[in-house]
Amino acid sequence: MKALDNLTNEELISLQNDLEKELNVFKELSLKLDMSRGKPCKEQLDLSMDLLSVLDKHSNLICKDGTDCRNYGVLGGIEEAKELLASFMENKIENILIYGNSSLNVMYTMIMQAWVFGIMGNTPWSKLNEVKFLCPVPGYDRHFAICEEFGIKMINIPLYEYGPDMDMIEEYISNDESVKGIWCVPKYSNPDGYTYSDETVKRFARLKPKAKDFRIFWDNAYTVHHLYEEREKHDHIIEILGECEKVGNPDIVYKFASTSKICFPGSGIASLAASINNINDIKKHFKIQTIGYDKVNQLRHVYYFKNLLGIKSKMIEQAKIIRPKFELVLNKLDKELSNISCIRWTKPKGGYFISFYAMNGTAKEIVSKCAELGVKLTDAGASYPYHNDPDDSNIRIAPTYPSIEELEIALNVFTTCVKYVTVKKILNK
Amino acid sequence: MKALDNLTNEELISLQNDLEKELNVFKELSLKLDMSRGKPCKEQLDLSMDLLSVLDKHSNLICKDGTDCRNYGVLGGIEEAKELLASFMENKIENILIYGNSSLNVMYTMIMQAWVFGIMGNTPWSKLNEVKFLCPVPGYDRHFAICEEFGIKMINIPLYEYGPDMDMIEEYISNDESVKGIWCVPKYSNPDGYTYSDETVKRFARLKPKAKDFRIFWDNAYTVHHLYEEREKHDHIIEILGECEKVGNPDIVYKFASTSKICFPGSGIASLAASINNINDIKKHFKIQTIGYDKVNQLRHVYYFKNLLGIKSKMIEQAKIIRPKFELVLNKLDKELSNISCIRWTKPKGGYFISFYAMNGTAKEIVSKCAELGVKLTDAGASYPYHNDPDDSNIRIAPTYPSIEELEIALNVFTTCVKYVTVKKILNK
Repeated sequence: MKALDNLTNEELISLQNDLEKELNVFKELSLKLDMSRGKPCKEQLDLSMDLLSVLDKHSNLICKDGTDCRNYGVLGGIEEAKELLASFMENKIENILIYGNSSLNVMYTMIMQAWVFGIMGNTPWSKLNEVKFLCPVPGYDRHFAICEEFGIKMINIPLYEYGPDMDMIEEYISNDESVKGIWCVPKYSNPDGYTYSDETVKRFARLKPKAKDFRIFWDNAYTVHHLYEEREKHDHIIEILGECEKVGNPDIVYKFASTSKICFPGSGIASLAASINNINDIKKHFKIQTIGYDKVNQLRHVYYFKNLLGIKSKMIEQAKIIRPKFELVLNKLDKELSNISCIRWTKPKGGYFISFYAMNGTAKEIVSKCAELGVKLTDAGASYPYHNDPDDSNIRIAPTYPSIEELEIALNVFTTCVKYVTVKKILNK
Repeated sequence: MKALDNLTNEELISLQNDLEKELNVFKELSLKLDMSRGKPCKEQLDLSMDLLSVLDKHSNLICKDGTDCRNYGVLGGIEEAKELLASFMENKIENILIYGNSSLNVMYTMIMQAWVFGIMGNTPWSKLNEVKFLCPVPGYDRHFAICEEFGIKMINIPLYEYGPDMDMIEEYISNDESVKGIWCVPKYSNPDGYTYSDETVKRFARLKPKAKDFRIFWDNAYTVHHLYEEREKHDHIIEILGECEKVGNPDIVYKFASTSKICFPGSGIASLAASINNINDIKKHFKIQTIGYDKVNQLRHVYYFKNLLGIKSKMIEQAKIIRPKFELVLNKLDKELSNISCIRWTKPKGGYFISFYAMNGTAKEIVSKCAELGVKLTDAGASYPYHNDPDDSNIRIAPTYPSIEELEIALNVFTTCVKYVTVKKILNK
């Protein structure tokens, strides 16, 4: 196929007709496929079935420090769980708090505590006229939903392959005291799959915010979620809390992680890493908010993974299942769409998504066209604050959940829809 | 021993000397006993070990509706868990939401949502000059701690054997719009072990609060926690939500329960029952706050208990272990202290506590005297808002955690301390 840009009007019209016929063929298949969800597939879940019986082998559930995990007590997590998560997060045990099954819930809790009680003696955000968060875009829709729930004004920051626009971030936070936070998915970002460069992380650690209670919300959701086994194909990132400590700025970051997508999503353990000052501030509310989190489940994960090596070897098994899916999507896109210059997509080495950038002003129509044909994609704009992609260009592709066969058909539909909507757009210009 | 009230001054002084000698004997034992915690003992926890392996027998974790419990998805709980909790709470499935491992955390969340977002479109409590809660006393210290955290003003309401003073409650809530809630442990109350009478529950259901967003926080923590197997020895209570619906007042109550203290405390599942209006209001925030709660653990509890009968039979086993402990405490108190007219204690048929009322102005000293001798009791005043028992009389006794042998010694120490401090008080009058 000739590059779309070089086609004459007549050639474009003829192509449109051909594509319309292809779409009609898909329509008759009555498909029901889903590429919208960043969910593991069944085969990935099957990898962790031993997690369910790992406690059977133990005659009691007593921790190293004598705590009976079956009973009440212990806030902030059992030592063994802190050790496991600390190794995985590259932090010290004293900087770790263990929570329940959802790191999103931990992030929500941090915003709520800042909102109602204030951070480290600062004015509660609820008492301020305006609270703003910086949002590298595209980003994680559920981060933005939390801001929307609290009425926190979101400001888009462009995200590049090496991280967000640091000049813009420095400008905002050093001048505007109402800027209280920034959402970051620093490694294999959602949805682009980008990893912040060393320079980016170093500039984050050295931020000098006007607001004393400014916090970086560092959601390291995909820290061990590599697509390839070989270490040289992994993205690497500087550990942020250590870097912040090094430059005398330890309190500026809340770091989040969880075992979701390592074993069972939604049934794992989540954790927060932060400076001792922050940990002490958070603990004051912790003990009021809950009787503690599920220690039996913490011990279950400790016995199951044993150590960081256990986590890493599980991730190699996971990668074996999902890598072919990512490769299929990338190959398909390459084969079908590389001749359209106004279209691009990311080629991540980890994480859960491929980020597709359609011709400006066509993303919504592509997603709705796919839906008509039975292929569900994440809503266009979902990765932007207020669901508003100013370019109407980004589409988040989630390859993990469908089977290879389903993915192949879904990609046929998707690429045909992209071509059809793009040609239509060019013709209507 | 003669009734204390009838002793002459000389007899009292001589008794004080004898008691002092007894205390010195205890001191030399270097005891380390704990009657402070409403925690199950090891033998109770051992009853539920099969919970840990119950999922092994199932080749998959697919729910009735096709949901794979191992994956993301489903807010508010899987249907099976709702059914189990609904039967146990005597509510309809559509009125149930399933949460994580801590019902205290659910209560905190309800306060937080009212505080930040407001209930059903009403003004968020954070925007009001004052918010007050009524607190039947003595009550659960962690309820009061939540109010203290949010700066909610607490008002003591006397609690009687049949429930709190309803005249006083009606007076407050029908006249004062800033009264937004009341904490209730309606069955086997903490710490008295009282159960609200039918009339009390009916009056609760018929409350006509001035504040539209007034809610009864109905913490039914001990609904199946009977000490005796025979049904005629159980306390019974009218189901509050049904009663509220019957009289056209369905939105006035949030009802809480959990499986903690039925199997493993802190690793169970918690739930909320409320009107459909409330459920819809709560769900708006639910989906922002978390990706959902641990469905694997929900299914684990469903497979383990199967149904209400499973829960009830587990509670009979639990009762067999803790009943002798309650009886030991009651017998000891009866034997040692029944001759002191200014002292009384409750004789609960369920729950986790015995509530002891020392002579006014002596509770703190008794608790501290016991601590000196190595017997830890709940802090005097802990069961009152702001830790302030106006009479300095109430002491909460938690008999479940220590062994029978430990309990026997602890009670010897306790009753001797009570006698000693009481005699001292009488002499100093």
